[in-house]
Amino acid sequence: MTVDIRNRALQVIARCQRLACFSEDSGSTRRIFLSPPMRDCHHEIATWLEPLDVPVKVDAAGNLRAVYPAAESNAARLLIGSHLDTVPNSGAYDGVLGVILAIALIEELRGQRLPFAIEVVGFSEEEGVRFGAPFIGSRALVGRLDQELLDRRDAQQISVRQAIEDFGLNPAQIPQAELQTDTLGYLEFHIEQGPALENAGQPLGVVEAISGQSRLQFTFLGRANHAGTTPMHLRYDAIAAAAEWITAVERTARGVPDLVATVGSFEAKPGATNVVAAEARLTLDVRHRSDEVRARAVEDLTREADKVAQRRSLSLRHAYMLDEQTTAMDPFLVGQIGEAIEKTGCTPLHMVSGAGHDAMILAEKVPAAMIFLRTPGGISHDPAESVAVDDVEKAISCGVHLLDQLASSAQFQQGTHRA
Amino acid sequence: MTVDIRNRALQVIARCQRLACFSEDSGSTRRIFLSPPMRDCHHEIATWLEPLDVPVKVDAAGNLRAVYPAAESNAARLLIGSHLDTVPNSGAYDGVLGVILAIALIEELRGQRLPFAIEVVGFSEEEGVRFGAPFIGSRALVGRLDQELLDRRDAQQISVRQAIEDFGLNPAQIPQAELQTDTLGYLEFHIEQGPALENAGQPLGVVEAISGQSRLQFTFLGRANHAGTTPMHLRYDAIAAAAEWITAVERTARGVPDLVATVGSFEAKPGATNVVAAEARLTLDVRHRSDEVRARAVEDLTREADKVAQRRSLSLRHAYMLDEQTTAMDPFLVGQIGEAIEKTGCTPLHMVSGAGHDAMILAEKVPAAMIFLRTPGGISHDPAESVAVDDVEKAISCGVHLLDQLASSAQFQQGTHRA
Repeated sequence: MTVDIRNRALQVIARCQRLACFSEDSGSTRRIFLSPPMRDCHHEIATWLEPLDVPVKVDAAGNLRAVYPAAESNAARLLIGSHLDTVPNSGAYDGVLGVILAIALIEELRGQRLPFAIEVVGFSEEEGVRFGAPFIGSRALVGRLDQELLDRRDAQQISVRQAIEDFGLNPAQIPQAELQTDTLGYLEFHIEQGPALENAGQPLGVVEAISGQSRLQFTFLGRANHAGTTPMHLRYDAIAAAAEWITAVERTARGVPDLVATVGSFEAKPGATNVVAAEARLTLDVRHRSDEVRARAVEDLTREADKVAQRRSLSLRHAYMLDEQTTAMDPFLVGQIGEAIEKTGCTPLHMVSGAGHDAMILAEKVPAAMIFLRTPGGISHDPAESVAVDDVEKAISCGVHLLDQLASSAQFQQGTHRA
Repeated sequence: MTVDIRNRALQVIARCQRLACFSEDSGSTRRIFLSPPMRDCHHEIATWLEPLDVPVKVDAAGNLRAVYPAAESNAARLLIGSHLDTVPNSGAYDGVLGVILAIALIEELRGQRLPFAIEVVGFSEEEGVRFGAPFIGSRALVGRLDQELLDRRDAQQISVRQAIEDFGLNPAQIPQAELQTDTLGYLEFHIEQGPALENAGQPLGVVEAISGQSRLQFTFLGRANHAGTTPMHLRYDAIAAAAEWITAVERTARGVPDLVATVGSFEAKPGATNVVAAEARLTLDVRHRSDEVRARAVEDLTREADKVAQRRSLSLRHAYMLDEQTTAMDPFLVGQIGEAIEKTGCTPLHMVSGAGHDAMILAEKVPAAMIFLRTPGGISHDPAESVAVDDVEKAISCGVHLLDQLASSAQFQQGTHRA
């Protein structure tokens, strides 16, 4: 590696850390859809792109958009990016790293123009924290930021539409945020957020597919009663029922290779020390590369919840919040990324992403692919989330090789690789 | 039963329903310590006592106090009462019924004076809702409304002391709220809040002891991680650990006769669908008539929580919030109540109360005893809480007989029955 790329990698990390300070919370990072720190984040990125003569715009869905022009003015464009929103108490790299690496790749071009333009995209919303619906930013690019989603409300009863207006944007201009017809593809660098690359001893992976996911809400409804006077056998305890079911969720997932099933939220009512709980409201998140395996697991776990509720004479409600099929990444781009990773001296690990990503949404309309960076300890969605500077160097080198390959690929530039 | 007592019972129920309308919430009853509806409640009760020439006072701890004088002016007094505060979304009878029955008994005397005065007490706080500490009202009577409790703050950071001042009372006068040295005892009518009387087919029970209770807080600390990318065997899932432990709590309690153990609140962080939970914070409430059985259960369950945490490489914190020993009721009064119940034609069920009551606090200083009324379905702390008019009639008759017995008992009036 050159000293230049080393310094570039250090700068990338420093920039990620800098953006982590733009937060709604003091002492931890939390930056939800169109919150005030998101504006600061956009301004900061604009100062980095200014010396490159790349103006920053914010589209009507709140996505940061910045076009580095091609050698010729009518050329098509390649999108590179990721998301700028975070979960509460997040790390500094999830999403943000992909946007900053896109900028670093433009900087590495040192003014050189390619046969295609590069558009840096910083999506406004991927995590689904504020409205319980993820991918608001990328959905705008594929024309799916629809009325239903615009009407959705956050905990303060502010709608997506209202949030857009409050940020000084115009919801009527959302159609202008859609992908241009000349878009050649979408590339996304992202931390793996899991242990596979670390276990394989490799810094970079190429994503072949993004796992489908089912998200559901389960509510066990029992009956509140006095904790001191109600004998154990006369209780309709929603917390106890939910606990029994959670042990079944864990057991089921452990029994099927590569299946993950998570109860990540648990709310109990009335929630008093001395009252048997009347209601337990949980979420279930199930993922597997095979849509069939995932669907079967959801079915089994729903049946199990029913059984637990029936045996205890409780009632059960459940509803889907999300049901996404597994999405294949573009085979041509996957091949090109594999080749670029090899040029950095590494072996590309071919992976299926367990996490959903904006690339999954973009893939509906354009060839999309992802490069994963090793995540120390697999730790993510946590302030301890990190990335090794060596691995960032490899990612930059990989990106440089990849742009070089694509710049000399007639197949890519003519779009003939598309399905 | 006479038509008079039938009408009296119907009036008692109507009055309970009337007080249930004095609420902080519209559409449900919630009346916490010194909230505005508590003042309305005091005023309403004053209008009922006015025709009896019994003036209502509110002591510095917010307790309603009303003395019906004895035949002679220097006579000692018997306290009869219960609490006027409620849990959120409460029923109409828990506490309130005991205060209204005390008034009904004075009404049944029709001006007749007894050898002792009767002081009606409506305690300001028993449930512990506002400050997370129960028995604020009755603690004042036994001289335990201390500085520590006065400094305690509610969710709005208002201290007990401030709440007292805001209600127009003077915390400096709390010592005057203490029991007079001439107090002969304390009687409390209360709904059972459990199924024992219903199962025994009896309207009334006499409480021999109030179960000790332990309340603890347990926090499982794991590590947040991505729900889609973290394989099951690499998780430190606080919700899954807590769920496993809750199943053990239920199993343990079911295995020991009359033991009750409850996890009534469950809070998970960060609490997102797609994030493995880092923290689960639960409460444990354990009760049994035997202090030894209770202590052993708490010890077993704490050890079990440790085991679950260790096996999963999580850490565990736990702390006591409350640890009360079992309190015996006064044997003389228990005997007198049993006799009075028999005079109504019923068989007194001798019971141990699983719920804590003001009588437990008063018993520190004076002979105290409780009469339980059958609770349909054992339903309490719920708007569906109810009481049968027939059972209220029996309670009034029991009270009339009891006052009659005590009025002719030299042993009681001279206090020689006291331990």
